[in-house]
Amino acid sequence: MSGNLRIAVLGGTGNLGAAIARRLAKAGRSVVIGSRSAENAEKAAAELGFGLTGMANVDAVQSCDIVILTVPFEAHASTLATIAPHVGDKLVVDTTVPLVPPKVMRVQMPAEGSAAELTRLALPEGTRVASAFHSVAAHKLITDHDVDCDVLVFGDVKADRQIIVDLCEPMGLRGIHGGALVNSAAAEALTSVLIFLNKTYQVDGAGIRITGKLVPPAA
Amino acid sequence: MSGNLRIAVLGGTGNLGAAIARRLAKAGRSVVIGSRSAENAEKAAAELGFGLTGMANVDAVQSCDIVILTVPFEAHASTLATIAPHVGDKLVVDTTVPLVPPKVMRVQMPAEGSAAELTRLALPEGTRVASAFHSVAAHKLITDHDVDCDVLVFGDVKADRQIIVDLCEPMGLRGIHGGALVNSAAAEALTSVLIFLNKTYQVDGAGIRITGKLVPPAA
Repeated sequence: MSGNLRIAVLGGTGNLGAAIARRLAKAGRSVVIGSRSAENAEKAAAELGFGLTGMANVDAVQSCDIVILTVPFEAHASTLATIAPHVGDKLVVDTTVPLVPPKVMRVQMPAEGSAAELTRLALPEGTRVASAFHSVAAHKLITDHDVDCDVLVFGDVKADRQIIVDLCEPMGLRGIHGGALVNSAAAEALTSVLIFLNKTYQVDGAGIRITGKLVPPAA
Repeated sequence: MSGNLRIAVLGGTGNLGAAIARRLAKAGRSVVIGSRSAENAEKAAAELGFGLTGMANVDAVQSCDIVILTVPFEAHASTLATIAPHVGDKLVVDTTVPLVPPKVMRVQMPAEGSAAELTRLALPEGTRVASAFHSVAAHKLITDHDVDCDVLVFGDVKADRQIIVDLCEPMGLRGIHGGALVNSAAAEALTSVLIFLNKTYQVDGAGIRITGKLVPPAA
């Protein structure tokens, strides 16, 4: 049951964060937008509507049960350092893709293997870390239209992954368990391929679907 | 135009290799199966039919224009060492996924970044290397049925990628340019996720589809 969990979307002033926050809030979830600046967070929340509120990152983390991290890769380390003392036993869901401009169409994974692994290393040992939402086009997610893309969810604890899978459904997305956190590398790397496809094939936000008949695992 | 190019499928006695060789031969392409043992290659070719022939790996390479490498990861390095003196200006298409048993459901990429990069490093400088077919379930590909899976094709030279994209069509597959060879990491890593999905969701061969309207690039 993820229905009553309070969610903070850090970087919610950005495209992906705003889109996730809006979909969740529209579905009736309790969502707060976090940003380095409380003022910017409040402004973004007011513009998005649906009862969203905004506050500074640390306040947002302290007010929630689930932290969804949607900051750009260049702000990843500094944001993690800011929130590390405050995550406690909250579930941290990283959406970060390790894009290295200017060559964002080339896979350039960090030596540690993935952004999710960097997150795990930057937070206190034992922090609940998952990752998801890497493949979803933000400009599609922020609309009211269906998004033709699956959400692969990674994490070492099945119950934590399930919380995110459950959050996807009211957002109109199909969440799918993708396995251990280390597997986040697959979805993160795929993002550079999707960006390449958008340019090469003039796609308005390429995504992925898993094919085959999926039988959801027992709880 | 890839129609007249002669194709060698190394490791064609294995599941994926046999499936690729069979689909290509059935579509009327000139295909030879390569194996360490000429006898095993001949036997596999005879069993598959469609005019397939078999020979030892080096002979297969010397007889062809395109080398499709489908050996298991543990035979990757030794096969490359065997064929390296003979590849010349042929196009080498690697299908290898760097699975590390027993934990094949976990992404465990080589330090070099991908199996495709290992292939590039193992062959003479300037060898034409591409990679493809990572996500296709061999047991589905070997049937006469449609396979609900796209083939992402990676390589640094667009014309070389196009040769593979063109080969996919008569195989009943949609080939898609996936960008530079370094991007092969995405599809290789995704294979461990697909294996995880097969187990977790009882899927009979999960695959991927790229969503969005793709406009093929001009030649």
